[in-house]
Amino acid sequence: MSNPPPSGGDLSRLRQLNALSAIRALRGTEPLPLSAIASRTGLSRPSTKEVVDELMGLGWVEEVPPTPGTVGRPARRYRFRSGSGYLAGVDIGAHNVRAAVADLDGNIVAETRQAVRPDTPVADRLAVVERAVAGCLAMSGLTAGNLWTVVIGTTGLVDRDGRVIFSAAIPNWSGLDLAGLLGGKFPCDVLVENDSRLAALAETRRGVARGSREVVFLHIGRRMGTGLIIDGRLHRGFGAAAGEIGMLPETRWKSAITHLHGCAIVPEGTPPEDAAGYVLAAARAGDPAAVAAVERYVDELAVGAAATVLTLDPELVVLGGGFSRSADVLLPPLRSRLEAVCLRMPELRASTLGDECVVLGAIDYAADHLDRQLFAADTGPALPLPLSVTR
Amino acid sequence: MSNPPPSGGDLSRLRQLNALSAIRALRGTEPLPLSAIASRTGLSRPSTKEVVDELMGLGWVEEVPPTPGTVGRPARRYRFRSGSGYLAGVDIGAHNVRAAVADLDGNIVAETRQAVRPDTPVADRLAVVERAVAGCLAMSGLTAGNLWTVVIGTTGLVDRDGRVIFSAAIPNWSGLDLAGLLGGKFPCDVLVENDSRLAALAETRRGVARGSREVVFLHIGRRMGTGLIIDGRLHRGFGAAAGEIGMLPETRWKSAITHLHGCAIVPEGTPPEDAAGYVLAAARAGDPAAVAAVERYVDELAVGAAATVLTLDPELVVLGGGFSRSADVLLPPLRSRLEAVCLRMPELRASTLGDECVVLGAIDYAADHLDRQLFAADTGPALPLPLSVTR
Repeated sequence: MSNPPPSGGDLSRLRQLNALSAIRALRGTEPLPLSAIASRTGLSRPSTKEVVDELMGLGWVEEVPPTPGTVGRPARRYRFRSGSGYLAGVDIGAHNVRAAVADLDGNIVAETRQAVRPDTPVADRLAVVERAVAGCLAMSGLTAGNLWTVVIGTTGLVDRDGRVIFSAAIPNWSGLDLAGLLGGKFPCDVLVENDSRLAALAETRRGVARGSREVVFLHIGRRMGTGLIIDGRLHRGFGAAAGEIGMLPETRWKSAITHLHGCAIVPEGTPPEDAAGYVLAAARAGDPAAVAAVERYVDELAVGAAATVLTLDPELVVLGGGFSRSADVLLPPLRSRLEAVCLRMPELRASTLGDECVVLGAIDYAADHLDRQLFAADTGPALPLPLSVTR
Repeated sequence: MSNPPPSGGDLSRLRQLNALSAIRALRGTEPLPLSAIASRTGLSRPSTKEVVDELMGLGWVEEVPPTPGTVGRPARRYRFRSGSGYLAGVDIGAHNVRAAVADLDGNIVAETRQAVRPDTPVADRLAVVERAVAGCLAMSGLTAGNLWTVVIGTTGLVDRDGRVIFSAAIPNWSGLDLAGLLGGKFPCDVLVENDSRLAALAETRRGVARGSREVVFLHIGRRMGTGLIIDGRLHRGFGAAAGEIGMLPETRWKSAITHLHGCAIVPEGTPPEDAAGYVLAAARAGDPAAVAAVERYVDELAVGAAATVLTLDPELVVLGGGFSRSADVLLPPLRSRLEAVCLRMPELRASTLGDECVVLGAIDYAADHLDRQLFAADTGPALPLPLSVTR
């Protein structure tokens, strides 16, 4: 069971606020008995019972079966249903559009990938995004009305309003009001963020950076980017333009990939999207020309990585993105170059989230957005959640 | 009147906690009547009166004269005496040791400067530091016992324990346990921090970066360094090694000064410490060779500055340190170079704190340390302040 879309208010304001308090009390904790919910919400026990019954009727809260073997009559316990609503995450790249739908705890229920081209027209790429989310929903027996938040990750520089200021990878993407164009397509909040930042977030939530508060995420694949976690938070900068060390000519990040694509061992006719993988695999097997090409590629990667590390002094550098599955080939030469210039050497780890790091980060970002709304709800005038439903 | 040194407990624990509550209530606000102090501390009015009387007796709180012309009998109002105690800040450089003593609001009451050399022996440089602080105290009619916190700023990389990990400017400084060596010389906490970080802090408190939460401070003089303010806080990094972009060979920061020192127009026999100033002044006057030398110097400065800006996307870049008084000559060429590579151009401002930026930052850092102790006092077991005095 999942919830129908919001449709005007039939819960009174007070009942909505009480319901929000109860949801807050139950979200992210173990199942609680009524007494604990009452104590956390400050409601009387009868009011708590009433609110919890109502939330059970709406499908947002469920009773947990008593633990077998409990002596005496155990108190009934309740938990927030992570399937009360759903989150969608999308990764719009130059060559692929990935999408996933997850429950409110971030568990993925369906995902899709569709190939596109850097020159795919804007309208076509947006249509792919819509079809990708619709496909995930259809596979899961859900509709758009079940979505509580949609987060779009995209290559390029994205401002706070969800506009793509600049994208080198998708030329027709620069200047696009992506939040505006996609906002009307879903009956919930639609947020847009830079792909490398979302991937960095995913690493701190479900990847190799869990527990670290100072992280530099190096997003490497056909293009390079960084996502920065500073003091435990995603760092955007004053104008949402942080992490763009690749713009510094001295880093040579824009041309680094040519060392792999242009390697002489690549068989004629290999599609560009397979050339780098071919060279990385040959380097793993010890081919001298491939090893030399990888060394030159890492030379370029290392300058921007070292600049970011020297600026921030992170605990951890995570190598992620499409090339992270070749981390065994890339990490040793990257480590030696960083050691040569860094005053304090951070730990280096390879991501295990692979190509899905952005879409997972989009889901995690959507869950954060939802939690911010839940926890801010009693200070603001508006209720952000679809709590006023038709029954 | 200022306070004698701490000397064991004659205020009971409860009275100390009540006194701390009252100090917290009064620190950094306008004068308050007893009723407001009682409401902020949660103490009864009689207890509040007792605590305030006691603090007045100790010299930490004073009564404010009633505003002239007030009708009726005005309530007595009290304020925290910024002269209850004093803070010392020291800037240990390769060529100068500066010191200042300030009241608890950070108002400087005395300052000194003494020349040293990069190769001054460690023991001699430490003796200069002691004499510098003693000189400030003597000028102000104070003794070391009046100091509540001492903060030492020094060139080089300083770890969280106050050890100098590495200093290129003062060769015999690397590896020195500065906090340990100076800790025993003063009857209060002695903290050590990197000089550029302290200067950045001063800019946000009393300089051109007031009100900004994302600031890159470029510390330029005979050497270059950076201090980073991220989300309103001084950024140290995981191992206190943040802001060291100058270690990246591509920045060429280590050799940049040679463009000024080696300029052909510098008269023979000019001491190295005056050469750069001579060239900057000549560039201001339009001398072509000096202008060319400054351009080459800024070329080098700009690479590290751009790397830091591209990584962090600050609101503001502040040019500070000894060369900041030549900002009129340096800012225009720096601006054009940053504009060429930065995706979003930050505002550029010249510091007005000049050579005193580090010592002022040390005072501000000391005041922050004191406030952290005041505000953390009721959660920790120890009372950090000299509240148990012999009367």
